[in-house]
Parts: sequence; C-alpha cells; structure tokens
Amino acid sequence: MTELETPHIRPALYLIPSTMSDAPVGDVLPAGNLRVVRAIKHYVVENVRTVRRFLKRCDRDIDIDSLEFTVLDEHTRPEEIPPMLAPLLAGEPVGVISEAGCPAIADPGADLVAIAQEKGLEVIPLVGPSSILLSLMGSGFNGQSFAFIGYLPHEAKARALRLRELERRIRQESQTQIFIETPYRNNRLIAELASTLPPSLRLCVASDLTGQRQSIVTLPLSKWAGRKYDYDKTPTIFLLNY
Amino acid sequence: MTELETPHIRPALYLIPSTMSDAPVGDVLPAGNLRVVRAIKHYVVENVRTVRRFLKRCDRDIDIDSLEFTVLDEHTRPEEIPPMLAPLLAGEPVGVISEAGCPAIADPGADLVAIAQEKGLEVIPLVGPSSILLSLMGSGFNGQSFAFIGYLPHEAKARALRLRELERRIRQESQTQIFIETPYRNNRLIAELASTLPPSLRLCVASDLTGQRQSIVTLPLSKWAGRKYDYDKTPTIFLLNY
Repeated sequence: MTELETPHIRPALYLIPSTMSDAPVGDVLPAGNLRVVRAIKHYVVENVRTVRRFLKRCDRDIDIDSLEFTVLDEHTRPEEIPPMLAPLLAGEPVGVISEAGCPAIADPGADLVAIAQEKGLEVIPLVGPSSILLSLMGSGFNGQSFAFIGYLPHEAKARALRLRELERRIRQESQTQIFIETPYRNNRLIAELASTLPPSLRLCVASDLTGQRQSIVTLPLSKWAGRKYDYDKTPTIFLLNY
Repeated sequence: MTELETPHIRPALYLIPSTMSDAPVGDVLPAGNLRVVRAIKHYVVENVRTVRRFLKRCDRDIDIDSLEFTVLDEHTRPEEIPPMLAPLLAGEPVGVISEAGCPAIADPGADLVAIAQEKGLEVIPLVGPSSILLSLMGSGFNGQSFAFIGYLPHEAKARALRLRELERRIRQESQTQIFIETPYRNNRLIAELASTLPPSLRLCVASDLTGQRQSIVTLPLSKWAGRKYDYDKTPTIFLLNY
C-alpha cells in the first residue's frame, strides 16, 4: 500500500487488539482493524519490537519507518503519559497496541485511556481476541455473572483466604471466577485447587487460546485430581464455578 | 459459494459471535469466522429469523434452505438440549449463534456448552464483539480486576443493598463493576447512581457499541448529575470505579 492510499479515519484514541498465538491475523482480527492500522502514524505500545512484527503481519507493505512509536510499560512514569496524546490534540489519530490480546484490559494502556476520557477525547476500542471472553464462552459456565481477578496472592495465608472468598462468591452469587497464574506454575495451581476446594466445584482450564494447540476443558475438581495434564509454560486461564 | 466449495473444518461445537449493531460484518468479525460459517450445516440459535439475516450478511450466496436450525431460548426445556449435540456425536460440526454479540456469555447457549464439556466434546469459541470487553477497554478503568453482574435487582431494598456491596468491592478490591439495565430505564439508572453513590465515583456509560452512534463517556458521578443525556432505548452498558 502506498502513502497515497492511506485511508482517512476520524481522530480518536484507537485501542487495537493484537494476535495472542500463532493464529493467522485474519482468523482473530476483523478486516476493518487493518483499515485503521493503515491510517495511523502515532502508536503507543508496550514493546516496539513485537508491535513492528505484528504490524508487518497485518500488512506486509506497511512502511514501518514512517511510524512513530512511544513506549508505555510498567516503567513509564505517570507524568510521561499525558504527552502521548499530543498528536490526537493536534487532530491525528493515535493507536494503542499491547503485547497480546486487547489493550487496556490488563496492561498499562488503561492509564492512557483514563487521561483521554478526562480530556473528553474520543476513545474507540476495536474487536479482537480476549482470553477472558473466549475461555468464558467455551467453559459452559455462567456468563451472566463473572469476575476476572488477575493473579491469586502468592503469600500462603492471603492465598487461602482469597480462594475461600472466591468459593463463597461462586456459591452465593453463582459468579464465575476467572484468574491467571505465572505460566511455569500452572500445573501446581491445578493440583492446589483440586486439593483445597470442594471436589464438586468445576474447574475450566483454557490454554493456548486461538492457537494450534488450543484446549478448553471443564471438569469437576475431583476429576482434575486424578488426571494427567501439562500446562506449564503455555498461556493458560482458569475458571471456577459449580 | 457452491456446495462443492464447502470448506472442511473439524467436528466441534463452534460458538459464533454475531454483529450487535449496524456495523458491517467485516468491521467486527474476523474473516476466518466466515470460513467456519460456510462449513456448518447444523445451527443452534436463539431466533431463526435474525440468524438467517445475519448469515446472509456474512455470505450473500449462502444456501440458507440447506441449513438446519434448532431453537435454544429461555422456553427450551432442559431435556431438549442434549439432543442438539446429535450431529456432533455423528461427526458433523455444530454452530451456536445468539442474538447479538458472543454466544454463551449472557444467553442460553451456555447450557449447551456445559453439556458438550460433560461429554468431552471439543468446544471452539470464535472472536467477535462483546459490549462487556469493548466498554471495559474504552472506559479507562482497571481491567486487571472486573466483574460483570448482569442486571441490578429491581426491588428497592435489594437494589440499594447491591449498590452498597458494589461500592465496597470497588473500594476494597479496585474491582470495576459492570452491569446493564432494561433499555427504557437507562436515563433513570444514571440519575439513581448519581444521587445514591459517592460523587467522586466514576461512571462510564457506553452505548451503541460498534454502531454509527457509538459513545463511551467516563465522568465522575458529580458531573453526570449536572449533565444532559439521552440513552433510553439504546443498548447501553454501565461501568463503575474510582
């Protein structure tokens, strides 16, 4: 695509999901997202190298060197964030792309969106893969009430308390509880859940979502206890409900 | 597309998101979903008429009359659900399509998925628009911890209690609370939140997501109190956090 063909989009903060596995771009992102990508010159990203690779996968002919990348990651100081909206204040669209999946869901992009909202700027989220949503759909669990809680606490006592609280919310509110773990501890987490929570509680383990080896398995904890599995080092998400 | 060109996909229960606004199919659904749609002959749907229209929008040349539709809605009796998996047990893929957005998130499709999981059948969720995810991305709120709770209770005392509990979870866990309302009560709900919850709490109102008149606005309740708005009869979702 040449520069002359750059499509026009209205100035806004575009939240652009990326792929989160080896899946082809066309299998997990709408074609409309590509039109947006082609029109944006200013990007806020977590990691420049992976975003460059992602943009090349979206459009082989994209002129990466004409694009401006600003890094927003866990090392960014709060006062560095507002200037990232300068192009938008000058009438140019700005794109946010995170490492995998949907930006601003579990990454620093949310801080930038919050500032855009404070300034009354338009924010446009685009459709893309979310391990939280895909796993919930595939689990068979209640989707009318669910919570994503990130990581469980590491410290033993706080962790036990948190698990008890989750079990209470599942029992009283039928609220599906969704969480993640550091990938090399996935197997250990399953064993821990199976040995500490009621055996009739069901656990869904969803791994390598959208990837070649995607697997979504829901079983009572009593069955996980006797099962062979190996999810270590694979991106995996966990869901609990009765 | 003629029958000879029907692509091959592996037998599984496919969860196929639909559009949820006037947005063109290509703006909100990956092209890969279309390949799946073309390969499926057996559908479980909430409403046959809207799904026929959706499939025609996906592929004008689709031969609707060659497809089998089974209705799964709130009137379906539990014992009617397992037979819907018969084609899959015979080696044929089955598709689930709900009214708007992602199946099995807030609709009866989840019961069918649960039975597929019990039988050890493969479930494959596809990417598509979700008002919960899109609004969370656009709100600027914490996406590391959030809960979707469906509707608030209607009865006054239960409703007041629920709102107090939500405010507590926001304060103690920084957990973004997401909910919906019957569309003709949207304006009333905003006024109610503004008059009963702490004025510094921020409310995001996201309406007509993916549509021509999409609007995502996050403001402190103190500002919503003095603002003019009209969200009645428009699909809208509400998010609260500090």
